[in-house]
Amino acid sequence: MSVSTSRVLQEFAARLGKGKVFLELPQRRMYRYDGIAVGETPAIVVLPETTQDVVEAVQLAQATGLPLVPRGAASGLSGGAVPTEESIVLCFTRMTRLELDPDRRLAIAQPGVVTAWISERAKPLGLTYPPDPASLRTSTLGGNLAENAGGPMCFKKGVTGDYVVELECVDAWGQVHRLRREAYDLPGLLIGSEGTLGIITEATLRLTPIPPHTRTLMAVFGEVGQAAEAVSRAIAAGAVPSKLEFMDQGCIRAVEDYLHMGLPVEAAALLLVDTDGDDPQIVEEELSWVAEACRECGGEVRVARDPQEAEQLWRARRSVSPALGRIRPKRLNEDIAVPRSTLPEVVRSIEALGRAYGFPLVQFGHIGDGNLHPNVMFDPESDDEDKVWEMLHEVARVALRHGGVLSGEHGIGLMKRDFMTEALDRESLEALWAIKRALDPAGRLNPGKVLPDLVSP
Amino acid sequence: MSVSTSRVLQEFAARLGKGKVFLELPQRRMYRYDGIAVGETPAIVVLPETTQDVVEAVQLAQATGLPLVPRGAASGLSGGAVPTEESIVLCFTRMTRLELDPDRRLAIAQPGVVTAWISERAKPLGLTYPPDPASLRTSTLGGNLAENAGGPMCFKKGVTGDYVVELECVDAWGQVHRLRREAYDLPGLLIGSEGTLGIITEATLRLTPIPPHTRTLMAVFGEVGQAAEAVSRAIAAGAVPSKLEFMDQGCIRAVEDYLHMGLPVEAAALLLVDTDGDDPQIVEEELSWVAEACRECGGEVRVARDPQEAEQLWRARRSVSPALGRIRPKRLNEDIAVPRSTLPEVVRSIEALGRAYGFPLVQFGHIGDGNLHPNVMFDPESDDEDKVWEMLHEVARVALRHGGVLSGEHGIGLMKRDFMTEALDRESLEALWAIKRALDPAGRLNPGKVLPDLVSP
Repeated sequence: MSVSTSRVLQEFAARLGKGKVFLELPQRRMYRYDGIAVGETPAIVVLPETTQDVVEAVQLAQATGLPLVPRGAASGLSGGAVPTEESIVLCFTRMTRLELDPDRRLAIAQPGVVTAWISERAKPLGLTYPPDPASLRTSTLGGNLAENAGGPMCFKKGVTGDYVVELECVDAWGQVHRLRREAYDLPGLLIGSEGTLGIITEATLRLTPIPPHTRTLMAVFGEVGQAAEAVSRAIAAGAVPSKLEFMDQGCIRAVEDYLHMGLPVEAAALLLVDTDGDDPQIVEEELSWVAEACRECGGEVRVARDPQEAEQLWRARRSVSPALGRIRPKRLNEDIAVPRSTLPEVVRSIEALGRAYGFPLVQFGHIGDGNLHPNVMFDPESDDEDKVWEMLHEVARVALRHGGVLSGEHGIGLMKRDFMTEALDRESLEALWAIKRALDPAGRLNPGKVLPDLVSP
Repeated sequence: MSVSTSRVLQEFAARLGKGKVFLELPQRRMYRYDGIAVGETPAIVVLPETTQDVVEAVQLAQATGLPLVPRGAASGLSGGAVPTEESIVLCFTRMTRLELDPDRRLAIAQPGVVTAWISERAKPLGLTYPPDPASLRTSTLGGNLAENAGGPMCFKKGVTGDYVVELECVDAWGQVHRLRREAYDLPGLLIGSEGTLGIITEATLRLTPIPPHTRTLMAVFGEVGQAAEAVSRAIAAGAVPSKLEFMDQGCIRAVEDYLHMGLPVEAAALLLVDTDGDDPQIVEEELSWVAEACRECGGEVRVARDPQEAEQLWRARRSVSPALGRIRPKRLNEDIAVPRSTLPEVVRSIEALGRAYGFPLVQFGHIGDGNLHPNVMFDPESDDEDKVWEMLHEVARVALRHGGVLSGEHGIGLMKRDFMTEALDRESLEALWAIKRALDPAGRLNPGKVLPDLVSP
């Protein structure tokens, strides 16, 4: 960093207020990583408390030529919040204002609001915010918006973007906009764009009434294809499960090793299904369609008798992360989405990749919309990390070969940026770049994310 | 038109096949207008039958420098499909392929498919396509996508864009893209952009199960504010009506004059409400919350005893268009959306405008999301049409002053393009123009729509 840049950063820190800026190396080093990758140490970390602070950070980027990397809790799993060069990291964890408008069923939230807070605050009013990424107790709304996060409920209730009514954002020139979802849906363009087109500083979100009744079942199958077929049949019968989770054998075994709850370790696939709604009889009937479909496809079904048993069954799914952590010190969590009919073949192909590369591998995910999370466990001390990434690239190729997409809900980020050249044709990538250049001609907003470098043909 | 352009058009017609191209003046003159405005006679009308035909029309635009104006049934109410200069009109009424995939609950439709066909074809499979613009028996999907059309069911079930999974489109360079709703939501950007950013040639749409039960009520009120308050209370009580329509006194009187069905012509406001769902008891209970809220706010409630009576009540709403046609030969149908709490004041302000300008005026709309349609009736022989447009501009200003937006569901088109400078600040308009220039640098796609000309400051 040049002496003059260094002086500009010092002046900025003095002007914005010392508490809002980190310039010391030990502090800055804490803002290099997200849930999956480690990047470059930022030149400065800004913790804005207001939209105006964000505007000033953008002006700092203009003055110094340093890029801006927005982040929240940094629990992301695709490297989207990781600086790839010397940057201004803009950490939103202090922008936590959250207001509810129960009459209009809206929440107005700043990006640093932890996702789970919204439903917690809305609960006494009989309302909820449905998007439920697994990280919802740590991840912040800004990151959910940037990645357009989903969760187990997304099959019935949609993803983050489906709940956005209005956004406030700061553009690459430091201008503040309030954008609604009208002609030219700019909020929709910003959602899922990982901070590469503009910086979201506030979101107005739709809340929905809490469904009063929920029922749960678990089903186990001898083959993955049976589970996929059961889901298709249940949906064809009219069921719209509110949660629909799949675990493969590797995943079942890892959880059983961890919890000793009596899961069938010989089973090839496990489904966890919730139905919910206003009427207990309908919720029950919907669950019975799912149970019947599972049995017809050769599954063994266990219906939870009460909320306690349901809670117990869901513990299996919630324990996947800690269970996997015991197998190897590190893991990479892939995130693909494929047509549900291709799931058996996709799961088998990915299992074969795990065997070929010699890494322990488990698969689980939101089977309703074919969103699968193959997880590769490895030891950075003894394993070749390049091999892990090579294998993940092959996993992405399996998805693309079966008509799937690179990301179900984690985003493209750093991790899958290069795969984009295989997922989209050159003309479509050029259209994405045209939009990027239109909204960020200097390339200052989260560079090195989402869009692959295009080499001239 | 130059002789060389004329020759290029002749050659194009010969190559594409005579039946797909209109070059004769009487035919071309039929493609000047939509449901609200008349524009310039196009230089050529192309009726593509395949995506490749669309590509060739784009190449024709490149070769001749003529702009492209896509249209379907031309039932639009904002001038979006009206040529503002000598153009290539691309009429999609022959691209009517419609395939259903009941297992995946999807419809794959070309832009010329009439909206109502989708639900008609899906009905035997127990499925439906919820977006229900009033024009659904004539309007085509391409126009619904271009305007992101809503309808009476949008409060509960969302608008056109909420059902789009994937789009095929042709860009300004004639390249064909298949776009899913992933990082950089390009389909979302195209939806509602009125053909100014790309030309949609196919859409993959989500279908939903048909709710088996519906209940209907009508409520009349002495004041508009009572109706708005009743809706707010019903929603706060937990009701999510599947349809929720408002008519003001002018509208009630026009319909009563036409149908003589015994509507209370002294009432200031009328609500028509449907609840729907899987369980008849819940549907009934939800309706009872609405009825209670209406009575608490001073409304008189009539609950339909059976589907025949419900049908009868809804006839009032469906007859608005023919009823208004009897008052004056022409009408302009405004389309604003305002926060529901401001509705009484907005309705009163717009009534006052009608009195001030001396035009008969009625108001109705989808009150659930504050979408109001003030309709101005006039006689082009005796009335000054400029005054009508001036008044509509004032109506738009009322919406903006109350925190509303220019369009609920009809789009900006030609009609409200100039109002955009009052609805959005200059920076936001420049962001929209930046996107337009990135995707259509030569300005060939439906010029003169949506975006106002920006005069240098």
